[in-house]
Amino acid sequence: MTIQTAIPVSVEWKDDHIRLLNQQALPESTEYIELTTIQDVYDSIVTLKVRGAPAIGITAAFGLALAAQGYETSELAEWRAQLKKDRDYLAESRPTAVNLFWALDRMVQSVECAQTVNEAKTELIHEAIRIQAEDEAICRQIGEHALSLLKNGEAVMTICNAGSIATARYGTALAPFHIGKEKGIDFKVYACETRPVLQGSRLTAWELMQSGVDVTLITDNMAAHTMKTKDIKAVIVGADRIVANGDTANKIGTFGLAVLAKEFNIPFYVAAPLSTFDVTIESGEEIPIEERAPEEVTEIQGVKTAPENVQVFNPAFDVTPNEYITAIITEKGVVQAPFAEGIQMLFSE
Amino acid sequence: MTIQTAIPVSVEWKDDHIRLLNQQALPESTEYIELTTIQDVYDSIVTLKVRGAPAIGITAAFGLALAAQGYETSELAEWRAQLKKDRDYLAESRPTAVNLFWALDRMVQSVECAQTVNEAKTELIHEAIRIQAEDEAICRQIGEHALSLLKNGEAVMTICNAGSIATARYGTALAPFHIGKEKGIDFKVYACETRPVLQGSRLTAWELMQSGVDVTLITDNMAAHTMKTKDIKAVIVGADRIVANGDTANKIGTFGLAVLAKEFNIPFYVAAPLSTFDVTIESGEEIPIEERAPEEVTEIQGVKTAPENVQVFNPAFDVTPNEYITAIITEKGVVQAPFAEGIQMLFSE
Repeated sequence: MTIQTAIPVSVEWKDDHIRLLNQQALPESTEYIELTTIQDVYDSIVTLKVRGAPAIGITAAFGLALAAQGYETSELAEWRAQLKKDRDYLAESRPTAVNLFWALDRMVQSVECAQTVNEAKTELIHEAIRIQAEDEAICRQIGEHALSLLKNGEAVMTICNAGSIATARYGTALAPFHIGKEKGIDFKVYACETRPVLQGSRLTAWELMQSGVDVTLITDNMAAHTMKTKDIKAVIVGADRIVANGDTANKIGTFGLAVLAKEFNIPFYVAAPLSTFDVTIESGEEIPIEERAPEEVTEIQGVKTAPENVQVFNPAFDVTPNEYITAIITEKGVVQAPFAEGIQMLFSE
Repeated sequence: MTIQTAIPVSVEWKDDHIRLLNQQALPESTEYIELTTIQDVYDSIVTLKVRGAPAIGITAAFGLALAAQGYETSELAEWRAQLKKDRDYLAESRPTAVNLFWALDRMVQSVECAQTVNEAKTELIHEAIRIQAEDEAICRQIGEHALSLLKNGEAVMTICNAGSIATARYGTALAPFHIGKEKGIDFKVYACETRPVLQGSRLTAWELMQSGVDVTLITDNMAAHTMKTKDIKAVIVGADRIVANGDTANKIGTFGLAVLAKEFNIPFYVAAPLSTFDVTIESGEEIPIEERAPEEVTEIQGVKTAPENVQVFNPAFDVTPNEYITAIITEKGVVQAPFAEGIQMLFSE
């Protein structure tokens, strides 16, 4: 029996427009907007209405497909030139998003063999839908593998939003909770609010509530006390980048949770698709850590919470060394230590 | 040479009024208010304009002294009855503040031997000033002892506000930074913002900036990354209660910092006066942990940051077991493991 749950989805193709969940309006209001032009798509990425690498890639792919329907030429060369221009335009919307370029380039490549403009237009839509469907399948597989590591009724902690609304559907770290719910497997999820941008309270708590998952919000500094007193059985997080030895860059605060989990003998899981791996980098020490604007720390939604001109250190990510990681959960299965070998095998298959 | 620094002080006796720093207005504005009636004093405690156990006790003591100047009777018995009534009134302003009762009772006891109303009135003022002066001396001693554990130029992390504005002056955990500054000993302090109430960003960052200490604000979940990358040489925190075996209850997040410090081989210091010890309790497991309103987590200064009706776990404190503590710094000196013996010695001297 599958229990129907309302797992929120961030982006949907609606033939003449793209339906997008405005993540900036969450959790105050659940607002879906219609993107009808390529400028709408560009703006929605720039203004962070859509976030999460896979969701951004999917939105951009649909955006390019949508724009290309309107090119008023039957000359394939001219049509391709316009497509290339729009591809470059969308690529500028988030210049550090590797997944964005990957999706856009895949879209452009998908029409390389097209014989007519009409064929190319149709192919673009199909390719965008395939990108979305493949991501959903990957997330589903990650969720199923994650479920093999968790038991019904367990309390699990997570940070940030590696969720359905960051991907095509289900998410990565949150996939087992959504899929578990469908199967009647329930978890008690503790979501760290994830300062400074509060993806945990604004997005993860909201997303899990939508699909009926039992979620409790804590501030990040409550993690140790919660692990000690609430019988947490696992910590599961997403990843921004996993390198050859398994060291994992993820949202700031992940590393601290991993250290706490180790201290309390709680398994610490990273859930991520193969596309998150960068095996050209040997070790996490080589990963540059982006520092963001101090206002993220000193203001919350426009309200000042710190003195004027205070010095701020605002790293967006941290790196969790592989020795703190119990397993990495991918669509191809669960990798355990020694990670270097396991990761090599993932990519040699 | 002593360098003059502007260490903020929360409460000052001004003969016909009490000058109080409005901590609720920080860090947006530095506002000092004049308390001229006992109702003013009561309200300032209830509305958290003054916070920190010693500062509350001092404010209440001055409040009682101020009120008692105005009793229009020369009958000592009648005067004492009014004093008792006002003592009970102020005691209700913060029913869980042990320090408040201690200060008020000490005030009432101070006039037990008075022969006249005038003598009693003067004695009350002197007693309140003594309470403040003694607390300042204690904080100074804690600061000096803490300085013996730290070196010029070191980076040190702290949480919450165990600061000058929570005491008579200097604070406990922040005392070495203020006193160090006076002596030309400089630290690079990393202040955790301390969700949910943000005492770190609103108060500690402000207080240290006032006295010219080099302070950098981080969110609580940046602690692990900061310890690893910023060469943190010590963590120093205050305490709400220290029990017979050294287990320490303090602001939520303290325990997590202690676990991280242990992992990174960074000394973890608790700075607190003897009045913080409760040696009638054997172990930290017996300390009840107050849970506070969910709105502290779901709203920041009135701005909603989480979904409506989300479940929240909001423990105000956590307990750091003694095995994570390198030393406890008191006005009588530095206590190291085994703490049970060291603490017993502190109180047997």
